[in-house]
Amino acid sequence: MNIVLLSGGSGKRLWPLSNDTRSKQFIKIFKTAEGSYESMVQRVYRQILSVDASATVTIATSKSQVSAIHNQLGTDVGISVEPCRRDTFPAIALAAAYLHDVHKISEEESVVVCPVDPYVEQDYFEALSSLGRRAAECSANLVLMGIEPTYPSAKYGYIIPEDKENISQVSVFKEKPDEETAKSYIAKGALWNGGVFAFRLGYVLKRAHELIDFRDYRDLYDKYETLTKISFDYAVVEHEPQIEVMRFGGMWKDMGTWNTLTEAMESPAIGKAILNDACDNVHVVNELDVPVLCMGLKDVVVSASPEGILVSDKTQSSYIKPFVDDIDQQIMFAEKSWGSFRVIDIEEGSMTIKVTLNAGHRMNYHSHERRDEVWTVIAGKGRTIIDGVERSVTVGDVVSMKAGTPHTIIADTALQVIEVQIGLEISAGDKKKLNIPSQVR
Amino acid sequence: MNIVLLSGGSGKRLWPLSNDTRSKQFIKIFKTAEGSYESMVQRVYRQILSVDASATVTIATSKSQVSAIHNQLGTDVGISVEPCRRDTFPAIALAAAYLHDVHKISEEESVVVCPVDPYVEQDYFEALSSLGRRAAECSANLVLMGIEPTYPSAKYGYIIPEDKENISQVSVFKEKPDEETAKSYIAKGALWNGGVFAFRLGYVLKRAHELIDFRDYRDLYDKYETLTKISFDYAVVEHEPQIEVMRFGGMWKDMGTWNTLTEAMESPAIGKAILNDACDNVHVVNELDVPVLCMGLKDVVVSASPEGILVSDKTQSSYIKPFVDDIDQQIMFAEKSWGSFRVIDIEEGSMTIKVTLNAGHRMNYHSHERRDEVWTVIAGKGRTIIDGVERSVTVGDVVSMKAGTPHTIIADTALQVIEVQIGLEISAGDKKKLNIPSQVR
Repeated sequence: MNIVLLSGGSGKRLWPLSNDTRSKQFIKIFKTAEGSYESMVQRVYRQILSVDASATVTIATSKSQVSAIHNQLGTDVGISVEPCRRDTFPAIALAAAYLHDVHKISEEESVVVCPVDPYVEQDYFEALSSLGRRAAECSANLVLMGIEPTYPSAKYGYIIPEDKENISQVSVFKEKPDEETAKSYIAKGALWNGGVFAFRLGYVLKRAHELIDFRDYRDLYDKYETLTKISFDYAVVEHEPQIEVMRFGGMWKDMGTWNTLTEAMESPAIGKAILNDACDNVHVVNELDVPVLCMGLKDVVVSASPEGILVSDKTQSSYIKPFVDDIDQQIMFAEKSWGSFRVIDIEEGSMTIKVTLNAGHRMNYHSHERRDEVWTVIAGKGRTIIDGVERSVTVGDVVSMKAGTPHTIIADTALQVIEVQIGLEISAGDKKKLNIPSQVR
Repeated sequence: MNIVLLSGGSGKRLWPLSNDTRSKQFIKIFKTAEGSYESMVQRVYRQILSVDASATVTIATSKSQVSAIHNQLGTDVGISVEPCRRDTFPAIALAAAYLHDVHKISEEESVVVCPVDPYVEQDYFEALSSLGRRAAECSANLVLMGIEPTYPSAKYGYIIPEDKENISQVSVFKEKPDEETAKSYIAKGALWNGGVFAFRLGYVLKRAHELIDFRDYRDLYDKYETLTKISFDYAVVEHEPQIEVMRFGGMWKDMGTWNTLTEAMESPAIGKAILNDACDNVHVVNELDVPVLCMGLKDVVVSASPEGILVSDKTQSSYIKPFVDDIDQQIMFAEKSWGSFRVIDIEEGSMTIKVTLNAGHRMNYHSHERRDEVWTVIAGKGRTIIDGVERSVTVGDVVSMKAGTPHTIIADTALQVIEVQIGLEISAGDKKKLNIPSQVR
């Protein structure tokens, strides 16, 4: 199976766990059989490989997610990097060109495109595999997955099939309806559109060449910024008369909101939490070091992270986005390719952060114009390069850097540093990347 | 008016705002006419002085609260310091001896004893003043305040008066009843016992000398630890046949629980908070720097502090104590006579705290056996004494202290320091107080 996972979105709907620099698909929230936690992307990747160990998995995503994907999935997974966001048609076209030109997949082979964030069981991936086989064999140009609806949702698009067979021609597509209209669709045998498309690789490449002037993957990548934003539905699906839909009746939840996310949690709490007996259908996800005590709540989700605290009725939680858009705030933590950082104190004239570097990683060599910095190493061993001079550091060592001083730190083992920034104009933008002088490189 | 305010209790019922080192009466939670916030003790003190500017106010409390009282009320207020906790009879006896021997109050003058935490208006203090005048004039040995009940509460003791006059003889006292019994008391004209006693000073001194063998205030203070714990009700009130009760029909709320505390809040939120329109009767007290977002909640209190996060149905919040008793955790912040500290990061092998010193204050000169410390000054000016050597410090200065090194910091202006503690056995107990060498004293 060739499978392309579409991994996009900023994940504001899962604030305060996700933010501009940490997408929801990387939050470790699902308990594994071994008792540890895995993220959406880890869960989906593991499930695909357990259904088809030889699957070619490609993640279509933006540059900013590449290091998180490598951290969580290793380097075997293929990544089709979108230089910028251009909606699903350019993203799928780029991934198709990547599979053809980089992975040398033949135009006759089928490809399944699927969102990265459904919460599903193995049977879903078995269905994707069938979908791929069908797309390779049948005369239709597209094979879609139609999910059997469990309630008249206003959140999904609907596919009305021509008949009630397992595989059927599509009669008509319907945009997200209101609840009443949804009921009438379901009465006519409509299925949810799960955003899954299977096709022969050559079909999508042909459509792409019709709509975009490009030679090959490299060329498409280079001109990606010039492409028009358009969805795969509008650009391809709506114009294609030869479409089949395959029914899927298994468990399927989309993980877009707190409401659906908490339904997928195995225990009522992740992190330090106390729920008294009077709590009913309460879920807590607490990433802070201090406890959350819940008493007498019903149908409530509580989530606390260094970014903030959400306390919401579960149904109401789907309306979170405009409120989060209005929260204009310092990013309080972020995962990076080299490790992570967390802001632990902000004062007028200073900011204190904890920096965690993974073993073998380093910061860029850089300087700041308008702040001094002091590092105190609290864990691990490494080396600093300050103004061209390399020095070994270990727990308890202190390094002071005046504004303007070039500096970096290299983690020989996993390394933690408390960094005190001092200055009246501290900003993320005040950072000049430099080359390490050749004598210490 | 001579008034003694009883200020006790650890305030676990208002977790996470109050804790073992910060009592509820010092939390600034009430909005003043000027728009700033004042604490329970500040509010009550201000109200007393506005009713009677010449009132002699004495706060009966433990040693640990003295600096907080001076910080919040200044040094004009009298403090009867209890060397340890011995319940209300020893506390009132000590305060009475303090008024007689230190303030030279005559035995004929009346004294009113009142808890520090009722949420009331001016009329309450006018009533206390009447109570004091009545106690000075009447033949009864005790005059109590009886609060007209607004509902059959199971949280208060009841006083059943002999008649319905404003001032009446007490027929009988009743312990906290269940709700049904409370209804029957109220049908008989019962009043809530507000814990307020007025008496002539000589009366309580006489009782005290009968029950405790002591000469004067100093002697009683010195033997305070040897006294038996007993309440004023058991030791005095129950044995006194000559008791009057005076009705009070004004606003009265006791601030013991989140439920009653939030009733007294003028706005739904203190600190960074967003409540959507679907919230109903929701209160937020947020002491963190990050926002709390509440959606679709009803009758809920949310409080966040460096100690933890409470999310509770308001009625349920009265059952908080056993849950807080079970939370065994590092104290994350505390107010001290010299300023305050807040733990901002805890790792295996290190702890990082922010220390704020008030201008003119200093830490004790001390050393630690099992941890190194690094200070980075982030605000203000002062001096350090490290191993007997004094040095000026200002913003950006860094001081490293190995385990065993005697050290202190003196704030010439308000001063803030990030302190990184490094060691595998960090504990509050690892602190040796030292004398500053004479040459730098």
